[in-house]
Amino acid sequence: MKKFVNDPKQFVPEMLRGIALANPDTLTYVPEYNLIMRSDAPREDKVSIVQGSGSGHEPAHVMIVGKGMLDAACPGDVFAAPPMDYVYETAKRLASPKGVLLLVNNYTGDRMAFDMGKEMAEAEGIDVRILMIDDDVAVKDSTYTIGRRGVAGNFFVIKAVGAASEQGADMDELVRIGEKVNSVTRTMGVALTACTPPAKGSPLFELGEDEMELGVGIHGEPGRERRKLVSADEIVDELLEAVVTDLPFSSGDRVALMINGLGGTPISELYILFGRAHDQLAEKGITVARSYVNEYCTSLDMAGASVTLVKLDDEIEGLLAAPAEAAIRVF
Amino acid sequence: MKKFVNDPKQFVPEMLRGIALANPDTLTYVPEYNLIMRSDAPREDKVSIVQGSGSGHEPAHVMIVGKGMLDAACPGDVFAAPPMDYVYETAKRLASPKGVLLLVNNYTGDRMAFDMGKEMAEAEGIDVRILMIDDDVAVKDSTYTIGRRGVAGNFFVIKAVGAASEQGADMDELVRIGEKVNSVTRTMGVALTACTPPAKGSPLFELGEDEMELGVGIHGEPGRERRKLVSADEIVDELLEAVVTDLPFSSGDRVALMINGLGGTPISELYILFGRAHDQLAEKGITVARSYVNEYCTSLDMAGASVTLVKLDDEIEGLLAAPAEAAIRVF
Repeated sequence: MKKFVNDPKQFVPEMLRGIALANPDTLTYVPEYNLIMRSDAPREDKVSIVQGSGSGHEPAHVMIVGKGMLDAACPGDVFAAPPMDYVYETAKRLASPKGVLLLVNNYTGDRMAFDMGKEMAEAEGIDVRILMIDDDVAVKDSTYTIGRRGVAGNFFVIKAVGAASEQGADMDELVRIGEKVNSVTRTMGVALTACTPPAKGSPLFELGEDEMELGVGIHGEPGRERRKLVSADEIVDELLEAVVTDLPFSSGDRVALMINGLGGTPISELYILFGRAHDQLAEKGITVARSYVNEYCTSLDMAGASVTLVKLDDEIEGLLAAPAEAAIRVF
Repeated sequence: MKKFVNDPKQFVPEMLRGIALANPDTLTYVPEYNLIMRSDAPREDKVSIVQGSGSGHEPAHVMIVGKGMLDAACPGDVFAAPPMDYVYETAKRLASPKGVLLLVNNYTGDRMAFDMGKEMAEAEGIDVRILMIDDDVAVKDSTYTIGRRGVAGNFFVIKAVGAASEQGADMDELVRIGEKVNSVTRTMGVALTACTPPAKGSPLFELGEDEMELGVGIHGEPGRERRKLVSADEIVDELLEAVVTDLPFSSGDRVALMINGLGGTPISELYILFGRAHDQLAEKGITVARSYVNEYCTSLDMAGASVTLVKLDDEIEGLLAAPAEAAIRVF
């Protein structure tokens, strides 16, 4: 295993501690619950926005806690949903008079943990709502999911809901916005290599030297098809076609286009995919109004990428353009 | 080769085109010279700041062209210095009454290209200066360098000089600032895997399943020692010790600490290294005042990382904190 790791059991806590040390003025770390929260949360004047999910998808979600984004994240271990008491304790600590909104990627394990954590918090009179995200068009059901999976497109739901909550929107309004963004967001990914969880120490699955997995899930779950590796252009054309025809996106649409790296792919390659996707969309009469090329939701060290489109209207575009801060940053 | 690539010869142009398409309002792309420049450059009221170097180190340097950073970058092919006429043409197009400052990482090939390009531009009356960056403490001379190599620490020179030029500093002042930042910046890196250049299609060197290369160069050049892979803590301790004792940094110092990923290492692991480095510095009485955990200067898809320290004073800290924009971004 070619990784920077000490004790694999401490992989997540050590990472979280590093995040907190790098952001001493803005973030608070509660080790008992893997909880990273804004130091100024909860705030009386805003709904608290929380994401959990498994670890191993960084920067999602522990590195996008910050002003205009999440108020807190309480991840589980690598590729494991957070225990229900993490969700419960997080909801308690984040309880605001305006409520707590839990954003959950649609994986059955996460759904269960958040449903139960929500019930526990509600029993103490905390106003908690759940908003499910399911942007992955690859498969209808999958190994660990009933219904579509929630993948990199969740960034846009978090960004929009985070911005609106910062502007004072109430719970009903935030749920409306989140559901709307989710309803116009579509993603599909591809794996070129498997990923290696620290606790396993070897690749999670086998992928031949000349193979790729089209429609892979963010834990390496099977997608639509295992296929011979082809050129960057052919890959992005296929991903884009699946995404465009699903909503469908059509001529005249304005979109946000995200090329998301899965962890092991350099950003140079992501820009090659971006250029091709941009051309193909232009040919279809679809305008790329906002561009996102980086790692947003990864699968540890997996080489691969996903393509996300969001259909924009003035409201969504305004929320995506609103200022935001997070641990993941350049400057 | 598990990469998103079409024709390897088009790897760099396709990437550059993608960058330009993602930033239509702020960047201009001149394909003939691999030139990415700010659309508002050159400006009469500021010195133009330019970096070249080989490609394959992204986001360095083509993705950090922007307000408060570089005015332009004119990279060569993957791991190849730009041809001298790229440098010359870039200097001509960036010529401002206040001059053109070329920032060059100390690799012999880059030095030659920039020296010759500078001479060609000077012959046409353009005021051009060169500032060399050589922050790598690993080795005194190396395969492709006389003197120390310039590696990830160049980010800090660019950031400081970019901010000062935005504030109107003249050429002499910028050279003073750049030399000062370079003089207090130290870096050392480690490779866990080799990298695969698209044109080669296979790893550039061999590294055993249980081996690492301490002090590796950003093209995979040998460093200090090939050694058995050890824990994250042991690795960062060794890198940090080399960096700290070199300047030396000492108790009472305030520093910027950068953990830079080399391309294939997920950011989760970088934060594990960061946490340990932070602890070790605290033990030595050295305060981390600014934190940088991300990919800044990579080696294609190499798994690995580097540690950079910058000794801060009020002037440097102010320049590092100044606003900046670049293609590499999250929001």
